[in-house]
Amino acid sequence: MNDSTREIVTAAVLVIGDEILSGRTKDKNIGHIADMFTASGIDLREVRIVPDVEAEIVAAVNALRTRYDYLFTTGGIGPTHDDITAESVAKALGVSIAVDPRARALLLTRIAEKDLNEARLRMARIPQGANLILNKISAAPGFQIGNVYVMAGIPSVMQAMLDEVLPTLRTGKKLESVTIDTGLREGDLGTPYGEIQKRHPDVIMGSYPFFNEKGFFTRLVLRARDEKKLSAAKGEVEAMVERLRAEKKIGA
Amino acid sequence: MNDSTREIVTAAVLVIGDEILSGRTKDKNIGHIADMFTASGIDLREVRIVPDVEAEIVAAVNALRTRYDYLFTTGGIGPTHDDITAESVAKALGVSIAVDPRARALLLTRIAEKDLNEARLRMARIPQGANLILNKISAAPGFQIGNVYVMAGIPSVMQAMLDEVLPTLRTGKKLESVTIDTGLREGDLGTPYGEIQKRHPDVIMGSYPFFNEKGFFTRLVLRARDEKKLSAAKGEVEAMVERLRAEKKIGA
Repeated sequence: MNDSTREIVTAAVLVIGDEILSGRTKDKNIGHIADMFTASGIDLREVRIVPDVEAEIVAAVNALRTRYDYLFTTGGIGPTHDDITAESVAKALGVSIAVDPRARALLLTRIAEKDLNEARLRMARIPQGANLILNKISAAPGFQIGNVYVMAGIPSVMQAMLDEVLPTLRTGKKLESVTIDTGLREGDLGTPYGEIQKRHPDVIMGSYPFFNEKGFFTRLVLRARDEKKLSAAKGEVEAMVERLRAEKKIGA
Repeated sequence: MNDSTREIVTAAVLVIGDEILSGRTKDKNIGHIADMFTASGIDLREVRIVPDVEAEIVAAVNALRTRYDYLFTTGGIGPTHDDITAESVAKALGVSIAVDPRARALLLTRIAEKDLNEARLRMARIPQGANLILNKISAAPGFQIGNVYVMAGIPSVMQAMLDEVLPTLRTGKKLESVTIDTGLREGDLGTPYGEIQKRHPDVIMGSYPFFNEKGFFTRLVLRARDEKKLSAAKGEVEAMVERLRAEKKIGA
């Protein structure tokens, strides 16, 4: 199977930051990246959140970059001492890191030379062999090295970097999906729904209960790369829902 | 050091569900658990999000439960075929799983016996040796086995389960924290702030930039278990901020 025609492209996200684990900052990046990947035909397979601790970042980077086609990190690329993502990624990949003339020049497009102090120069420290990831909001770049993409933690900056990078990624065949609102409780459809899943192994059939003032209800989501297979499963599920609703005397 | 007097108690969270990785559902549990743990004196050290795949759940459960004092999982304990958390946790711990009479009785407090079908009975399947975790919203229980706490994915149910469990957990000495709004950019304070960190190794000194219509600003968060150490570092950071603001001619 040729890489460029592979049906499935996988990715992981590594969120780096004490502030997410303490609850002080609520992550807004995972959901956005998940949406963008799904829309692009990239399967997000795993997410990890780790603190600003070098050994933890190095271990997670190596676990994830070797297992998935892409690894995206967020957070820890600013100018303060707790921003250790670039150094940690360099360490994980076994490459050196130094102030990069391209990154330094970028910073100087927005910062006067007299203000380019030791702290700000940290933002120009880029692992050897990396490509810069620009963004429209901040002069400080992210970077890509191998299959690792290092992005900012601030959502608006992260989103701008992701927009920059997405068109350059290899993508797989998109998972098409259909959502069926059943008006039923999960327990009423679980057994027959599971039987339909057995007949349609290439369709990923999820069941998502939710709770509102009227009680518990269920949305079913079917996903597949093959539209015919998706359509066949959908037909069976819709017939099942209709039958169960008739049995329960629930109106359309 | 006696367990009951240990200063630090650690935990991990494992979020289980395709729907979080696809972006279809945005996680609301991680931030809530992080807040509750921080308020209780439990250090959340790692979070992972994995799909509804048994091998992935088993591997993550074993990696996390052996490394941290507590592991909390969310998601995958409903009545449909994609709810495989209980089976996977049993497998990870090497124990058997079967319909638990206590859980079955619980379900019957809300469900008529005629409606306790095969699907709903899945929610009473509990690993051998586990304790049930009740909740006020749904009759279906979570469970605790060893240091692993298995909770629902629906936020309101998860929160009710967490409320049930939190008072029973061993907790550590809380990290006290102070937040200092600097009105400065990170690059202007990074170097002197890092020097203060070097003098106060027992204080965790974070720096959190944010962006609004007026530009980039920075909040500093100092955390420590020892109030005197926290106070000493805070004094130095406040003096630094005052000095830098005077240099930059920023009003109070």
